[in-house]
This record gives sequence, structure tokens and C-alpha cells, in this order.
Amino acid sequence: MRWFTVFVAFKIVGVIGSTRAEPEVLRLAEEVGSEIAKRGAAVVCGGLTGVMEAVCRGARSSGGLTIGIIPSDDKNDANPYVQIPIVTGMGMGRNVMLVKSADVLIAVGGEFGTLSEIAHALNIGKTVVALRTWKLEKAREKPIENLVVATDAKQAVEIAMRAISAQK
Amino acid sequence: MRWFTVFVAFKIVGVIGSTRAEPEVLRLAEEVGSEIAKRGAAVVCGGLTGVMEAVCRGARSSGGLTIGIIPSDDKNDANPYVQIPIVTGMGMGRNVMLVKSADVLIAVGGEFGTLSEIAHALNIGKTVVALRTWKLEKAREKPIENLVVATDAKQAVEIAMRAISAQK
Amino acid sequence: MRWFTVFVAFKIVGVIGSTRAEPEVLRLAEEVGSEIAKRGAAVVCGGLTGVMEAVCRGARSSGGLTIGIIPSDDKNDANPYVQIPIVTGMGMGRNVMLVKSADVLIAVGGEFGTLSEIAHALNIGKTVVALRTWKLEKAREKPIENLVVATDAKQAVEIAMRAISAQK
Amino acid sequence: MRWFTVFVAFKIVGVIGSTRAEPEVLRLAEEVGSEIAKRGAAVVCGGLTGVMEAVCRGARSSGGLTIGIIPSDDKNDANPYVQIPIVTGMGMGRNVMLVKSADVLIAVGGEFGTLSEIAHALNIGKTVVALRTWKLEKAREKPIENLVVATDAKQAVEIAMRAISAQK
Repeated sequence: MRWFTVFVAFKIVGVIGSTRAEPEVLRLAEEVGSEIAKRGAAVVCGGLTGVMEAVCRGARSSGGLTIGIIPSDDKNDANPYVQIPIVTGMGMGRNVMLVKSADVLIAVGGEFGTLSEIAHALNIGKTVVALRTWKLEKAREKPIENLVVATDAKQAVEIAMRAISAQK
Repeated sequence: MRWFTVFVAFKIVGVIGSTRAEPEVLRLAEEVGSEIAKRGAAVVCGGLTGVMEAVCRGARSSGGLTIGIIPSDDKNDANPYVQIPIVTGMGMGRNVMLVKSADVLIAVGGEFGTLSEIAHALNIGKTVVALRTWKLEKAREKPIENLVVATDAKQAVEIAMRAISAQK
Repeated sequence: MRWFTVFVAFKIVGVIGSTRAEPEVLRLAEEVGSEIAKRGAAVVCGGLTGVMEAVCRGARSSGGLTIGIIPSDDKNDANPYVQIPIVTGMGMGRNVMLVKSADVLIAVGGEFGTLSEIAHALNIGKTVVALRTWKLEKAREKPIENLVVATDAKQAVEIAMRAISAQK
Repeated sequence: MRWFTVFVAFKIVGVIGSTRAEPEVLRLAEEVGSEIAKRGAAVVCGGLTGVMEAVCRGARSSGGLTIGIIPSDDKNDANPYVQIPIVTGMGMGRNVMLVKSADVLIAVGGEFGTLSEIAHALNIGKTVVALRTWKLEKAREKPIENLVVATDAKQAVEIAMRAISAQK
């Protein structure tokens, strides 16, 4: 347990995505989790199944720390790879907290919940790395600052870690 | 005050949009507010300035009822046309409640906060009428159910009222 | 509908209490609601049954306006006397918003939920009028500012309205 | 980092108390934190100064894991002993999440914020261990289930750990 005493606050990467996702997206999410863990950062996610479970499984497989911000009142709704379930009982309202608690966000696939999280993140100027998700840049005329498109898991995590370093 | 005793629950139309908006968008928002009031429905909005103030001003000018879901702890942050300020102290977290409290939503212009509200609404299957806002249909391959594009204020409100009627 | 145009913001009295309550407490709550309405203020409450329903019924019987801050995602959980349901989907988290949205609070009876609301209100320096509720003054050594014990419904509402006037 | 792979979910003890507290109360909180860490459980608290900082310092001094549920939008508001800041931006609304995320709660000293957390916990049937805090049992006629008074830090943590074991 000496590891804990070496430093205090964790770098925290938020990973957002849906409960339902294609196998290819789940594979990407798992790799994202693993890459985050290898770089010593913690993962925060929505704590449920699908992309959320895949990213936690990936992180845990590489010895990482996983935090799940659960929408319901029941910590048992967390997927089995969540080590720290934060039980909000606030439904979709928890999406805002997930975004605020992350130093940077990676969106992997995703439906409307993910879109709301991307929007919240961009709203407060947080970097969002987009991996096979909404093509938001097509949805309005002005360019979207802080939204970076990545093509694979490793690149996505590298962009994310660089964004965190730039904050310090 | 006899008016109140005629019926119980109000029909509630949520109007979402930014604090900063072009004059043309503000004009649209004001007209939307007025049209909602003429149909006897209440307006719920984020309660601040810009589109939120314009829609409340329009609603009040036609004798409507206005509810503002305020992000801060201070009800004095509500624009002067809000009759019922709901003080959440939850920042962006209040966007979720605005969406849930509305029977239908009309988005007028809007930035990332508005996008998060559109996403929340679509996430729970609520109809969103889009008026000069995000062209979300371009941001993904599948069509988006429950998102209806309107071209003017009157049409937007008519679509919204029809969506409410279809719920009953 | 000209009434609305006479003034803008409503004075809002929060009434807090449990779903389960003795008949005597329910009677008190109904009278509190009626007295608030007679003084032209709106009632905000948790929107459910028991004390919350009694206070809304009392307010409506005297032509008042009733707002219910609903914990669930479903506005149909509001009691039938709620005119404006605010749907939070935030469970107990909604108690904080109820307290913040009220200009003053009256506690009628009540269990732990009510206690949490009394605590939130005192925490932010809001006046709480206590009517057959927790005897909080016995629970610690220091006196409790802003907590006023009332003996009947009319007196409770008079104290509450005076507290609002003192704010302006 | 192998330690993490040994088990998945942490046992989480919530510790609640004020930013302002007497030296004796702070000393108790620090000892509570240390005792929790020695038993391998994580601490969740409100993340700010006073009792919250003391309990985190105690936990860290014994190699424990510390989670702070921050009311503001700024993770830098966390005290320096918080390893995992959860940034809620929900003010007092975060108290509810703290309570829900803890398997059991220990109240050390405390003002109205702490009282609201005790009330939330008892409301959902969670055990609260009381250490020099509100004498809630004096505030109403019926006895209060799930509220256990402790006389020192070690005893408080032992009662808390027993309550967790009883849940499994």
C-alpha cells in the first residue's frame, strides 16, 4: 500500500459511452481503459454496463483504479469492475458530475446520454476526445473548440493525457 | 383569481436557449413565449437572460405564467419576467430538471447548454422542436426520432402543443 | 387573467412534512395551506401525499397557487392539488431545492426527510417555523437562531409572512 | 499496484462534520480516519476543511484511500488529503450523495450540514454512529433506530465496521 503515499490526487480521465454498443466499440472502450491505467490515471465513468463496463474492465486488467458515478440509489447497479461506486440517486443529473469530476473526457461511441455529457464538457471548456461518436462538428456552422477527433484508443488516451498535462 | 380554480395542472412548455443570442433569435424567442401564453400553457426555462428572458417577456406580455429553474443559489438571478423562480443551486445540473419538468421542449438558437438539454430530452423520449438551433440530424448516421424542425415561432408552438395533446 | 399582470414574482412559502401523518397534523397542514393562499403567497412543497397533499388542498381551496418539487421522474406522482409539478428525478436531493426555492419554511409534523429540510434551511439562514415537529432546540446546547415555534396554523403563517416582509 | 487487483469494491465509511470545529473534535476526526484506514476501508467525506480535512489526514497517515464529494465546481477546493475529488457543483445537494455513497456514517461534531446528512442517512435506514454530535434522540418522543452513540474514535469505527459486515 506504499504506492498510495507516493502522491496524493489522482489524474482522472472520464470515459463516456452507452450501455448498448457494438462489439467493435466495446473493444475500443476496453483498450481505452487499459491505456489509461498504464499511464497511472484513474477512470471515472457512469458505472453501468456496455461501454462503461468495458472501460472499467480494461482499466482493472492493467491495475488501474475505477470510479463509477451511479445514477440510481443502489451501488449494486455498478458493474463488477467499479471499485469506487459514487451513488447519486440523481438519474441523468449524475452526468454533469461525471463531467466535472474528470480532468478530460473521452467519448467512445454513444447515444443521447453521451451527447449530453459532451455538451456539458464543452460548455465548461473541458477537452473532449471523440472516438467513433457524434460528429458534432457537422451540427453547427462555427468550429467547436476543445473537441478533438481520435482514430484509435491509444491515440485518444495520448491526446487526453496531454490535455491534462497542459492544465498543470 | 377564479381562473386558477377552473383547472388544476398547467401544461408546461420548456423553452431552451442561450444567455447570448443574436437579435433575430431573441425576437423569435419572445414570439414563442407569446404564442405559448396565448394557448394557455405555462413556460418553464432556465430563468436567466438572453433567450430565457425573451421567452418570459413574450409570455408575460400575453398574460402567461413563467417558471425559471435557476442554476445559482440566488433567486435574484432570475430575469424580471420570471414569476416562479425555482432555486436549485445545482448549476448545469438544473438543465436535467428543466427538461423533466417540461411536457415538450422548444429549442431556440443555443450553445452547449442548450445542446445538453436537447440531448437529455431525446434521451427520455421527449419531443424537441428545433428553431434555428443545432442541426443534430447531421451529427450522426441514424435519423433522430422526436426531433422536429420548425421554421417560425408560431409553427414551433403549434407542433409543441400537438405533441402535448398526443400525450393525454 | 389580468391578475398575473398586476405583479411579477410570487412570495413563496415552503411547507415541509411527511407522507405519513396523524389526522391532527394533516388538519393543521391543510389550514396552513389555506392561510398562505389567503395572504396571496404561493405554496411550494415536496408534491407527494400526506402533509404535502393536505397543504396543497388547503391552498387550492382558498384559490392559491401550488408548486410541487417531485423527487421522481414522473409528474403523475404529484398529488392532484399540485398545479406546477417540478420534476427533478433527484430523490431526496430535491429537498435542498425545495428549501432554496422557498422564502421561508413551515415544518408541520415530519420525519427524517423533514428534519433534513429543517437542517438545510437553518444552514443557509432561512427562517423555519416549527409546528408540532422535531424539538431541535433540545438536541444541542447552543440556542438555534431562525427556528421559531408556533402553536397553531394561523400563527405559523403570520410568523412566516412577517419573516418574508423582513427580507425586503 | 498489485494491491488493487486483490479485491474489487472498497468498503466505504462516510465521515461527516463541519468546516469549523474545536481542536478536540478535530483530534477525534483524525483518529477516526486513521482507524478506518487500518481496517482497509476507504473514507468518503465532504472534501473541505475542518473535520473533513482531519479525517482525510488521519486516513492518509495510515495509508488509506480518501474520497471527497466537493460542493463547488472546483476540485482545488478539496483539502490536500483528498485523493479522489468528486466535483458535484451541487452545493448542499452533494450531502445526499455523500450519504448514499457511504456504507455507514460516522458523525463527528457538526452543525446544520451534518444534521442534514444524519437525517438523510436515517431516512434511508443507514446506520449513523454519533460522536460528540447532535443529541437527536432528545429531539423527539420516539426512539431513533439506526442511531448509535459512541464515546471514542476507536469504538465509533468498530461499530461502523460491524454495521458494514452485517450488510453482507
